Amino acid sequence: MKNSTIKVSIVGASGYTGEELVRLLLSHPAVVIGSFYTSSKAGETVAKQQTILRRHPIYKDAVYKSIDDITQDDSDVVFFATPHGVVMQNAKNLLAQGKVVIDLGADFRIKEVATFNRWYGEHTAPDLLPQAVYGLPELLEDKIKDANLIACPGCYATAIELSLIPLIANNLVEGEIIADAKSGVSGAGRRLDRAELLLAEMHGNYKSYALGGHRHLPEIEQTLQGMASAPLPKLTFVPHLLPIVRGLYANLYIGVASSATAIKTINDYWADAAFIEVLPNKAGGESEVAQLSDVVHTNKLVMSLHPIHSKRLLVCAALDNLVKGASGQAIQNMNIRFGLPQTTGLSALSIC
Amino acid sequence: MKNSTIKVSIVGASGYTGEELVRLLLSHPAVVIGSFYTSSKAGETVAKQQTILRRHPIYKDAVYKSIDDITQDDSDVVFFATPHGVVMQNAKNLLAQGKVVIDLGADFRIKEVATFNRWYGEHTAPDLLPQAVYGLPELLEDKIKDANLIACPGCYATAIELSLIPLIANNLVEGEIIADAKSGVSGAGRRLDRAELLLAEMHGNYKSYALGGHRHLPEIEQTLQGMASAPLPKLTFVPHLLPIVRGLYANLYIGVASSATAIKTINDYWADAAFIEVLPNKAGGESEVAQLSDVVHTNKLVMSLHPIHSKRLLVCAALDNLVKGASGQAIQNMNIRFGLPQTTGLSALSIC
Amino acid sequence: MKNSTIKVSIVGASGYTGEELVRLLLSHPAVVIGSFYTSSKAGETVAKQQTILRRHPIYKDAVYKSIDDITQDDSDVVFFATPHGVVMQNAKNLLAQGKVVIDLGADFRIKEVATFNRWYGEHTAPDLLPQAVYGLPELLEDKIKDANLIACPGCYATAIELSLIPLIANNLVEGEIIADAKSGVSGAGRRLDRAELLLAEMHGNYKSYALGGHRHLPEIEQTLQGMASAPLPKLTFVPHLLPIVRGLYANLYIGVASSATAIKTINDYWADAAFIEVLPNKAGGESEVAQLSDVVHTNKLVMSLHPIHSKRLLVCAALDNLVKGASGQAIQNMNIRFGLPQTTGLSALSIC
Amino acid sequence: MKNSTIKVSIVGASGYTGEELVRLLLSHPAVVIGSFYTSSKAGETVAKQQTILRRHPIYKDAVYKSIDDITQDDSDVVFFATPHGVVMQNAKNLLAQGKVVIDLGADFRIKEVATFNRWYGEHTAPDLLPQAVYGLPELLEDKIKDANLIACPGCYATAIELSLIPLIANNLVEGEIIADAKSGVSGAGRRLDRAELLLAEMHGNYKSYALGGHRHLPEIEQTLQGMASAPLPKLTFVPHLLPIVRGLYANLYIGVASSATAIKTINDYWADAAFIEVLPNKAGGESEVAQLSDVVHTNKLVMSLHPIHSKRLLVCAALDNLVKGASGQAIQNMNIRFGLPQTTGLSALSIC
Repeated sequence: MKNSTIKVSIVGASGYTGEELVRLLLSHPAVVIGSFYTSSKAGETVAKQQTILRRHPIYKDAVYKSIDDITQDDSDVVFFATPHGVVMQNAKNLLAQGKVVIDLGADFRIKEVATFNRWYGEHTAPDLLPQAVYGLPELLEDKIKDANLIACPGCYATAIELSLIPLIANNLVEGEIIADAKSGVSGAGRRLDRAELLLAEMHGNYKSYALGGHRHLPEIEQTLQGMASAPLPKLTFVPHLLPIVRGLYANLYIGVASSATAIKTINDYWADAAFIEVLPNKAGGESEVAQLSDVVHTNKLVMSLHPIHSKRLLVCAALDNLVKGASGQAIQNMNIRFGLPQTTGLSALSIC
Repeated sequence: MKNSTIKVSIVGASGYTGEELVRLLLSHPAVVIGSFYTSSKAGETVAKQQTILRRHPIYKDAVYKSIDDITQDDSDVVFFATPHGVVMQNAKNLLAQGKVVIDLGADFRIKEVATFNRWYGEHTAPDLLPQAVYGLPELLEDKIKDANLIACPGCYATAIELSLIPLIANNLVEGEIIADAKSGVSGAGRRLDRAELLLAEMHGNYKSYALGGHRHLPEIEQTLQGMASAPLPKLTFVPHLLPIVRGLYANLYIGVASSATAIKTINDYWADAAFIEVLPNKAGGESEVAQLSDVVHTNKLVMSLHPIHSKRLLVCAALDNLVKGASGQAIQNMNIRFGLPQTTGLSALSIC
Repeated sequence: MKNSTIKVSIVGASGYTGEELVRLLLSHPAVVIGSFYTSSKAGETVAKQQTILRRHPIYKDAVYKSIDDITQDDSDVVFFATPHGVVMQNAKNLLAQGKVVIDLGADFRIKEVATFNRWYGEHTAPDLLPQAVYGLPELLEDKIKDANLIACPGCYATAIELSLIPLIANNLVEGEIIADAKSGVSGAGRRLDRAELLLAEMHGNYKSYALGGHRHLPEIEQTLQGMASAPLPKLTFVPHLLPIVRGLYANLYIGVASSATAIKTINDYWADAAFIEVLPNKAGGESEVAQLSDVVHTNKLVMSLHPIHSKRLLVCAALDNLVKGASGQAIQNMNIRFGLPQTTGLSALSIC
Repeated sequence: MKNSTIKVSIVGASGYTGEELVRLLLSHPAVVIGSFYTSSKAGETVAKQQTILRRHPIYKDAVYKSIDDITQDDSDVVFFATPHGVVMQNAKNLLAQGKVVIDLGADFRIKEVATFNRWYGEHTAPDLLPQAVYGLPELLEDKIKDANLIACPGCYATAIELSLIPLIANNLVEGEIIADAKSGVSGAGRRLDRAELLLAEMHGNYKSYALGGHRHLPEIEQTLQGMASAPLPKLTFVPHLLPIVRGLYANLYIGVASSATAIKTINDYWADAAFIEVLPNKAGGESEVAQLSDVVHTNKLVMSLHPIHSKRLLVCAALDNLVKGASGQAIQNMNIRFGLPQTTGLSALSIC
């Protein structure tokens, strides 16, 4: 990428992660938004829904396009902020036109077709899977910079993988791992088919869900397996619904050979990661603890490390599910792909 | 009504006001619930949704019936906790069977067919309007005790009418009235067709709505006109959505001949009302102020009276929209109709 | 206890658990409240703060007394809804007067003085410890019925102990236990010394806390050890703060010999417990999941059981920290002590 | 001001508006922060509380200073984000050193000493009042650009004044004005002396307050009187507490000569205001309505205009009390004073 501007389009622009892409891209210095596609509001003015655009000099009169019009798209990058199943129908044509496709959904996260099919239903573009790169920039920057099909991780997967990677890579886990992870309701998307997402149902409430297994699990196992030199430890992942809008908080209870070694290893591993803050560990329960208010509206993952005893470590990891867990990470991937610093357009969020 | 038990059925039992009826009736000493009707969950176990019933000795295995089965209903009273339009299709048959019909909706609140039609669409049972009694017990107890078709007021209407009746009845209003009234989201019902009711949209949010006019206005005007000896003062009513589940708070700014007289009049007027608490007024801004936490889960309306100046009074009126604004008031009406003390089954809520 | 009324006094009546005691006792058929003691509001009308009492026929003019006046107390039972340290200064005198002392705090929960001192500071009435009975009614009803000094469990302890007792008693645990437990902010009390309890800090937030160890841990270990026939499995307990008022949700990840056996054992063990609901387990992740909305304002503990795999069970346990976790359980203990059915005055809450 | 950087210090940097100043100034291209003063946390690392600074290249090790150290301050501008009473003790010295003082509090908002004293207690620096300029940039830009002592309006005052100025200036008000205005709890500051600000008290709650008169009223009257060519209409202003963190929503019910004229006038008056969005008015209740989600985290005031009838207009005005109602507006004033475009450092917020 030279000095020119990157033209991007957004499919699913009327959902929560689509809106968040818009919000973040508005302050990205190298991006112009081409088209806003949606399955439900085609023909409506974008600013009617996304009131942040009401007076924007460029986008104030922009109109949502039907996703059918994507065949005419003239952008460099197409973000898909859509449920699984959409990008697999459109990726081939877009790639053939030389575009970069960045998927915030699940279509290309899982390498094994059989595994995908078991969790999501039949994959209709398995031939594209080999070229897809998993968009976890802290792990795969080298591949992302050359990828044309980038599959961004799920929000839970981002938090859990970044917490565990240093330990798995260094073969420090002994025993089982429990990942008790909680998310605000925006993680479910702007959907009107589940009463539990109504304020009247969820305000003051709390519950576990997906007790039969959550779709982010195979993705997490695939990532961790990819860097493990031994069989993966047993991982239990249970998601929960928090009565808030934004934020994902993962508590990972990890059996380790040595808590002290594990703490040092995680600190060292992420010392240079622009968007990962590992809080300093202190003796006697005096350590600062990660909290959602540290990360909301930022692209950061903040984690604190707490030795329960010498052989069990608790990692508390917090991120904003719409930013580092979705749209911010997608832009981070775009930055890498186009040769920009990772923090471009995200720096206000990452530093501040 | 003698010593026997009242058998009641609930239409719309799976909505918020339907559920609240169930919750309240469970501790009513003279009631047994016959059937739970719903338009959407027929055939499902009620306790699956209303988990309060899971171990109830009588109702734990009760199943939602289709509203079509209402022709077989064998209860003494049928509550309709339904959107407008449902009761007008069913009332004639039920009344013919000698049942008492208590409507929590709007079908029989408004006496003039033309007015009804303008706000709600065409009325299909206008012949029943004359026998319908407006179920505001503090005003119409004498008529309610003989009524077979009781039309319970809207939640906003309850708060605004009870605040204004003493002043209108005594011809104390001079100038316009502004009613700025706020409600929690349960007032909109358990509906999945409006994104604004999602926690992700409304949490931390606030807005006015129905700026073109709210359907409770004609009902309020009808009630007040009915007791006014002079033309009604101009009434502006604007509703707002609060980011909470339960509670309705009305601020009424009222031009009065004398604030002091108005305060004394309201206190005197409601001195014996079991469910209306008028907080004592003190000089210098030191008066206690009604708040939602005073009323949530009770059948009370709590109001505080504040003289802005000698000719303008502010009434702050708080109630629980699901109890005094809907289901509690409906039971209060049933109590009157069946010769029970008004507070029966509601006393734990009213006193406590 | 014969037909007479139980006269009770409440120390710490202006705190959240004190208020909840008042609220619950108002509908208890065998209780009259004698005195409301508080350290901070002596001389004020109780109803000014607890507006539920504004029109109560008996208590509307009641005034908070200073705790110094407790020497004149004439009640049968004294509830202490106070921070630790208060009851140990007053229990001896009250017991000498033949009163029953029910402590909602921590002073007499822990049997070993050294353990108490390590977690709470010096115990000043260790001689009373032998006669104190731990007030977990589902476990110790036989002792509670004769006890004059009852130490009610902590809110976290109640949820975690009731979840684990059936498995420990039957020696079914293999491997470690992780208890990831979340509580609403009312659990911290009405205190103004911690900014994190402000709505402006906690709304939309979430965090783990007490990572150096929580005071409920020794109490839990003592209870479980008391019924274990083998060394206790390692228990990790981490508490978290939820951005809600009421409710405590515990997720227990338990290594077991057999998930199926564990599920059956828990169901059998609590089959007759009036206040414990174990939700039915179904195959394939279709089981109902306990949620806070099932239990808020009730004295119930609702738990759902989910086999993660054949040797790891997840228990999701929900209760209201102010009711089953504090004031409701205290009344349940009083009922037992005075020969009343456990559900007296709590049945509206337990059944409904 | 030339091309050089503006060095600013913040007094009260540990409060909510102080923190918001820090957050906003971090992305201001022309500002460097000199000192962070606080009355309560002197000596502590700022980043410990304001975790946004944890990795900031410049401020990560900054330490809160005692306000006593302000005599050594070497900045160009000192912001006071303090309760009233603080700036009046420090302004003279700072002004004598040639600094610009920007007060977010009330000390210099009111011109008449007697009026100030009545509402706030005795003013100790009345000699400075004549040089103080009221920092409402949309009204007083010409004076602000030369002012060294800028008194930023209160949050309620900002919303109410900007709503009324066009009508007062054009003499279009007839009859009384009711301003029913609601604010999130951050408006009260990070204070631990009022239980009503606890999440446990306010979550799900709502109430009016300051019924004896709110301190922003004299300020509003002074501003409006200053531009009125006739006696001011009677203004009733009642504030309310919303159970949210950020956001202020004012409903103004205004008697007008002609609603249509009033609407046109307001639109014309603010057509060029960078931070004021007047939503288009449409017939039949179809107009868009301002809501808090339009403005939270931005420096915008969004207003919608609704004719109740031909002679009464409702203005719905929304702003973020911490940004346009406090810290954002303070920076807007600084920009004007230093010859920068008003939107500098605020544009991401205003446009986006």
